[in-house]
Amino acid sequence: MSGSQTTVATICQTLSEKIAAGGYSATGRLPSERTLSEQFGTTRITLRESLSQLEAQGLIYREVRRGWFISPPRLLYNPLQRSHFHAMALEQGRHAKTELIDACQLIGSDDLCQKLALPPQSALYCIRRIRYIDGRAVLYVEHYLNPQFFPEIIHDDLTKSLTDLYLSRYGVRYGRVRFDMVPTRLPPEACDALKIALGSPALFITRINRDQRDRVIDCDLEYWRYDALHIDVEVSGGA
Amino acid sequence: MSGSQTTVATICQTLSEKIAAGGYSATGRLPSERTLSEQFGTTRITLRESLSQLEAQGLIYREVRRGWFISPPRLLYNPLQRSHFHAMALEQGRHAKTELIDACQLIGSDDLCQKLALPPQSALYCIRRIRYIDGRAVLYVEHYLNPQFFPEIIHDDLTKSLTDLYLSRYGVRYGRVRFDMVPTRLPPEACDALKIALGSPALFITRINRDQRDRVIDCDLEYWRYDALHIDVEVSGGA
Repeated sequence: MSGSQTTVATICQTLSEKIAAGGYSATGRLPSERTLSEQFGTTRITLRESLSQLEAQGLIYREVRRGWFISPPRLLYNPLQRSHFHAMALEQGRHAKTELIDACQLIGSDDLCQKLALPPQSALYCIRRIRYIDGRAVLYVEHYLNPQFFPEIIHDDLTKSLTDLYLSRYGVRYGRVRFDMVPTRLPPEACDALKIALGSPALFITRINRDQRDRVIDCDLEYWRYDALHIDVEVSGGA
Repeated sequence: MSGSQTTVATICQTLSEKIAAGGYSATGRLPSERTLSEQFGTTRITLRESLSQLEAQGLIYREVRRGWFISPPRLLYNPLQRSHFHAMALEQGRHAKTELIDACQLIGSDDLCQKLALPPQSALYCIRRIRYIDGRAVLYVEHYLNPQFFPEIIHDDLTKSLTDLYLSRYGVRYGRVRFDMVPTRLPPEACDALKIALGSPALFITRINRDQRDRVIDCDLEYWRYDALHIDVEVSGGA
């Protein structure tokens, strides 16, 4: 048991160092489990335990039927420097893409209506999208909009930045924003969208956005892959 | 299949509503799985799937061999309002407790020395603690201190607030702080300390703390149970 633990630790360290040194960066992909087991002269069980530990650290990830891949660097998400998704990715030298799942009008749940400062049973626009960084789906998001600010927006091209659309078509600019971040597990609809296993960890970010006149205009429910981002906040000293 | 999905959704909704209404608050505990299966007239498999979904939402949690419990409210963690652990709990009407695992001097890893702005191979103090809210272990933390600021601190009573000890014994006050938050899975040592299943989701917060003279004094590595906290940040509008 203790021998097997040592082996796991050794395999993890060797693989981490090789990844850090760019050893697999040409393909972004680890050799097959069989090849790795042979290289380390170990059992498939011990190898899998090692890979799971590296996965837990967010260093590698698995794709169904495709094998193990090196995780790309986490996207830096600084809530104090507001920047929309495409701009944020670009500033960090990454490539962003947005895919629309659907857009419709619906009656908001009590909770959503409250977040949007609307009476219960209000009609809302719901826009569901998947966002990609360098071709990898990292974010499943549901946007809920107060329709009175954005009439007919759901018939527009919603693969573009909403921030730009708000401004160019409706003269609405983002103002104050409230972030609530909760570590959680991905709900089933997000697992489907991001094509990852049920029950995977996630960061769930709720943003309630106001406009330049301090009116609540929309609310975003964002489910991020746990290994896709980190949050960085610097705070000056107190009294 | 679709029938079973409907049942799961119905069970989840019924249980959520009952929990929200305080239905199980007297004991903080759900009835046994067997009792619940009978109440809902459903199979154990369907019931378990429902319970797993509620667990994923952070509404309930399981203790090994003890059954299912209602999750206490998440602790609010606002990085913009610095407050030490015991004070933060007290402000939210919660009871905090700190348990010392161990404290020692060691040679820091390259990464830790860099975080503390020290040369490689520097000696550091390491203090490992478990923190409880209302009797539940929610946080496993490793504190790494630059010993030159805190000579012999590891022989002090380390179940108390370090903030208070820094000030009363060493005249050191916290200044700027840098937070880095990463959703991850709990590492094995944190699972042991918090007595939860291997691979459970967690929020990993790294804090690099400076003193009133802007010198880096310590670095905290915090592993939080994923269902124990939420982060709340309000940001004023940009240009």
